[in-house]
Amino acid sequence: MPSKDSPLVGLVMGSDSDLPVMREAAAALESFGVPYELTVASAHRSPALASGYARAARDRGLKVLVAGAGLAAHLAGALAAETILPVVGIPLASSPLGGLDSLLSTVMMPNGVPVATVAIGGAQNAAILAVQILALSDESLAEKLLERKVALASAVAEKAAALKTS
Amino acid sequence: MPSKDSPLVGLVMGSDSDLPVMREAAAALESFGVPYELTVASAHRSPALASGYARAARDRGLKVLVAGAGLAAHLAGALAAETILPVVGIPLASSPLGGLDSLLSTVMMPNGVPVATVAIGGAQNAAILAVQILALSDESLAEKLLERKVALASAVAEKAAALKTS
Amino acid sequence: MPSKDSPLVGLVMGSDSDLPVMREAAAALESFGVPYELTVASAHRSPALASGYARAARDRGLKVLVAGAGLAAHLAGALAAETILPVVGIPLASSPLGGLDSLLSTVMMPNGVPVATVAIGGAQNAAILAVQILALSDESLAEKLLERKVALASAVAEKAAALKTS
Amino acid sequence: MPSKDSPLVGLVMGSDSDLPVMREAAAALESFGVPYELTVASAHRSPALASGYARAARDRGLKVLVAGAGLAAHLAGALAAETILPVVGIPLASSPLGGLDSLLSTVMMPNGVPVATVAIGGAQNAAILAVQILALSDESLAEKLLERKVALASAVAEKAAALKTS
Amino acid sequence: MPSKDSPLVGLVMGSDSDLPVMREAAAALESFGVPYELTVASAHRSPALASGYARAARDRGLKVLVAGAGLAAHLAGALAAETILPVVGIPLASSPLGGLDSLLSTVMMPNGVPVATVAIGGAQNAAILAVQILALSDESLAEKLLERKVALASAVAEKAAALKTS
Amino acid sequence: MPSKDSPLVGLVMGSDSDLPVMREAAAALESFGVPYELTVASAHRSPALASGYARAARDRGLKVLVAGAGLAAHLAGALAAETILPVVGIPLASSPLGGLDSLLSTVMMPNGVPVATVAIGGAQNAAILAVQILALSDESLAEKLLERKVALASAVAEKAAALKTS
Amino acid sequence: MPSKDSPLVGLVMGSDSDLPVMREAAAALESFGVPYELTVASAHRSPALASGYARAARDRGLKVLVAGAGLAAHLAGALAAETILPVVGIPLASSPLGGLDSLLSTVMMPNGVPVATVAIGGAQNAAILAVQILALSDESLAEKLLERKVALASAVAEKAAALKTS
Amino acid sequence: MPSKDSPLVGLVMGSDSDLPVMREAAAALESFGVPYELTVASAHRSPALASGYARAARDRGLKVLVAGAGLAAHLAGALAAETILPVVGIPLASSPLGGLDSLLSTVMMPNGVPVATVAIGGAQNAAILAVQILALSDESLAEKLLERKVALASAVAEKAAALKTS
Repeated sequence: MPSKDSPLVGLVMGSDSDLPVMREAAAALESFGVPYELTVASAHRSPALASGYARAARDRGLKVLVAGAGLAAHLAGALAAETILPVVGIPLASSPLGGLDSLLSTVMMPNGVPVATVAIGGAQNAAILAVQILALSDESLAEKLLERKVALASAVAEKAAALKTS
Repeated sequence: MPSKDSPLVGLVMGSDSDLPVMREAAAALESFGVPYELTVASAHRSPALASGYARAARDRGLKVLVAGAGLAAHLAGALAAETILPVVGIPLASSPLGGLDSLLSTVMMPNGVPVATVAIGGAQNAAILAVQILALSDESLAEKLLERKVALASAVAEKAAALKTS
Repeated sequence: MPSKDSPLVGLVMGSDSDLPVMREAAAALESFGVPYELTVASAHRSPALASGYARAARDRGLKVLVAGAGLAAHLAGALAAETILPVVGIPLASSPLGGLDSLLSTVMMPNGVPVATVAIGGAQNAAILAVQILALSDESLAEKLLERKVALASAVAEKAAALKTS
Repeated sequence: MPSKDSPLVGLVMGSDSDLPVMREAAAALESFGVPYELTVASAHRSPALASGYARAARDRGLKVLVAGAGLAAHLAGALAAETILPVVGIPLASSPLGGLDSLLSTVMMPNGVPVATVAIGGAQNAAILAVQILALSDESLAEKLLERKVALASAVAEKAAALKTS
Repeated sequence: MPSKDSPLVGLVMGSDSDLPVMREAAAALESFGVPYELTVASAHRSPALASGYARAARDRGLKVLVAGAGLAAHLAGALAAETILPVVGIPLASSPLGGLDSLLSTVMMPNGVPVATVAIGGAQNAAILAVQILALSDESLAEKLLERKVALASAVAEKAAALKTS
Repeated sequence: MPSKDSPLVGLVMGSDSDLPVMREAAAALESFGVPYELTVASAHRSPALASGYARAARDRGLKVLVAGAGLAAHLAGALAAETILPVVGIPLASSPLGGLDSLLSTVMMPNGVPVATVAIGGAQNAAILAVQILALSDESLAEKLLERKVALASAVAEKAAALKTS
Repeated sequence: MPSKDSPLVGLVMGSDSDLPVMREAAAALESFGVPYELTVASAHRSPALASGYARAARDRGLKVLVAGAGLAAHLAGALAAETILPVVGIPLASSPLGGLDSLLSTVMMPNGVPVATVAIGGAQNAAILAVQILALSDESLAEKLLERKVALASAVAEKAAALKTS
Repeated sequence: MPSKDSPLVGLVMGSDSDLPVMREAAAALESFGVPYELTVASAHRSPALASGYARAARDRGLKVLVAGAGLAAHLAGALAAETILPVVGIPLASSPLGGLDSLLSTVMMPNGVPVATVAIGGAQNAAILAVQILALSDESLAEKLLERKVALASAVAEKAAALKTS
């Protein structure tokens, strides 16, 4: 559930059929206590909504935009065209090409307008990347990221230990 | 050289480095006597220009838009998002991936917003497709297309004949 | 169900196993009230039928041909070889390669014979592209396309609103 | 130079720009003394020429057709659609995709209409395959193929020996 | 069931897990009355068996070899290395790469040793290609192929007619 | 030339042969007045150097790491494994695969450890992305980014104007 | 179950979700009586664990490391960076790209740090490769490999025989 | 120049046109003082030579085979089919597909017959992998590998230092 605090991260999906994947990003942000908002805005079906959202984002206090889209995934690039906020792109595997189409459409941006692309379907990582960016000016977030990093390593070590004794 | 008649086809390129390829489209339109205009409008670096161009196109009397772009080629899709005119997309091979990136970015459009995609670098064919569309309501253009079709076949037949006697 | 009016769009599929996808194109045309016909004609198994269909199409009053085929998808190109009507190609994902084969077979046409290619499986968009072409000389169709464009954007806005309150 | 004997192999190319590659096939046939003819017939620009050629081929005494084409390479498939003669397809690398387009367009034929596809640019092998087919009913050709096979192995053995003493 | 006549076509598979696909080739040969044999011989697990089979094939009266294999599909090439008979290769989709691995492993043969490659999983077409080759010296087979060609076209025409009245 | 101010961005390349590309990132940072450092650290040839660099980066005052690498490009991921700073990855096209290898090696990171990937060879965009991140807490950088965005759009508009009058 | 003898082969997986595949490698080693250990160590989530494991491996008496990982599969390369033991890499198909990502991430290593890569999902072959390496100084293992090779060929021959009489 | 000592590594190339790449492997082996031999043996043009070489290799005292080949690169697999020695495969980029064909043909081996595949064109790494294998029973080689590993890291550190002061 989006926080009541003023959101810092804007999660945008090209189609509400992408909601299950984008909820993973939302869950990750919630686990860090980062306020966010979740919306739908298609670069192709509602271009004014998408560009308007991006143009207003900075003044509304958003710090990072995260866009998930499939096929000829233009959403992240369309947002990046309209804002100086960092835009994270999540290519979604919506076609028989397994996401190669959305990956290339998201990552191969021309000079001047970057999109910070994560793995195909990598919604959780998109959220973590947003947190890493926010943590540059929020020491408590940095602490949480460091704890998470330690926890990740510990979980692996525990699994290794469990395997040894199994 | 663009015609002084009111243009029917809008040729748009994402970057003026694409000019040599787009001139092939222009030359093909000229050979059919179809008035056109040639402009630059990047979906990423000048999104307002691009969307404004597309929104105004129909009222300005344009009938078909032709967009050439490379990399994460969003231009054709960005125009198609803003107009009901048919939009022809030319994927350009500007990256080490040989145009696979621009092809998928151009052709894999979501339901509701088609782009009529031609081959990688297929500027001449983009122009011919525009002419085919215009010819539906211009019998003299249809005549020229039929002549061109006969000429294409004759050229092949002549080459076949030349090979036989060589 | 195909209209009793003289058809303006010819929907052609390479195999009747493609019927479910092609019915999406048919449904889209019906929603615009555009009369169409639906047929089967394989470029490889019934080449005379396919080329004869294309050669007769213009005199029969058809304005746009839409061809769906999988694998080494030659159907759209084979029709385009025989007519000056605009031909829209739908690559179908019939093989383990996910439609990359049919996409490249449809879109990479040589100079002189364009195919207006849409996304893999993009039957609905093929129909909309045909309507966009027909709308150039049919203001009522243009109205419907404009309404549809507004409706698409509204649907996205509603979903965005619904997300906000959920 | 094509033989004055009645040709057994028809070498067909989609464009005369493919002539240098197709001459390798011709040279290979000449080295076996197999009479052939060399012609141009585009599936897209001269479809009637191409299909007429294929339909007449068997009655004219041809035994094998060899078709080289690039891009959306439909030529081999278009010939195979019109004849029961074996058709050998050579995908040519004419686009920035390195021949992946022509390979898939040539090889991924639907059930009922096979094309015997060789490697991208594999004109020499196309000719050898044609000779292997002809050799089934021509013992002198079979002898030559066996000699060639021995010679290939000897050439490798000689190179191995040369490396040893270098 | 393989015929009791001396087989003309040798169907070879790299693994007995390929049997269901290869049975399609067998069924197609049976439908033409072409005697064949069906065997297993892996280029990698039983190389002597595979090469011995190919070396003996011509003397045993076989005319065409058909090899189906997946992954790094070397079987067709391994057979072709040892015989002057035409070898037809069927790339099988046995890996998560959808057969791109077996296609390239089968078709990209070096100069001197061709493999007549058909589509991924194209067992039926492999058989038809073999019949086309045999038909060059068997008029009754040629008749059957012509009938089949007519039947293929008729079946399409019937489906087209059925669609019209549905 | 790296600034004498304490660097905020660490530019790391896997091999000094990548220096020409990485200098584009450096130049972009200089144009924004962002202090940076430039170093070499291979994930494979000097793993301790690379991981030590990443572990120390945050305490040394760095805010963003930018890693460029080719082939099986692990550098960005190796840095991201050792720091909570945002890591930007630039896939470099060092192999005959055109950078597809380095793109997938950089972007397809597992859950928990994101890499913000830009286009193949996209060094300039990597720098701009770093500046966008830094600008979240540096208003003067934000001003420069806004100016740059305006300038990009103006440059396109000027080119469009120049084309019109040419 | 790992042997109580001092392990010679270290099987490492990037995530315990890879356990089913890695158990195939374990089973193969057991069938040869080769002692091994099985552990989890992620190059990205527990880099110190992974590099520590590799650095200690040789002194602990391990002879070959086998690493299985998916996505941007850096594990094998990360181990190879830290040891002079031969490292075998198994690309796992964990993403919608079918393992193309993990294959390229594993195999395209830069000069100086090789990874002996096997097929996507090729855990059994990774184990056999390890045994082949160990067999260079263990004649009894060599005997077992020779027996296995004979058995593989016999199994194929038996299947061929079974097909003949079926 | 191959050593006069009894060779431990057999370098085999499919064609003498591959000699320049294979000489890199030879040079790497020489730098470690590992005796080797260099030969040509095509899996397709001289199959008996190739399989005979592999069958005799172990008795002749060879410990590792290294095979380089392009296109449908079967050489490494053909050797591996005939020996229990570890076989290292080097895919060579000899076609317009940039080595994707030879990579997949080399690495995607079926269960039972592994090939230790290195990067496209990775001849130097193939040699180092062979040395790593030999070093398991040759402490002086292990010393050299450790020195080389230190030297690689030092070279990177020196370049990093040079960059700092430039």
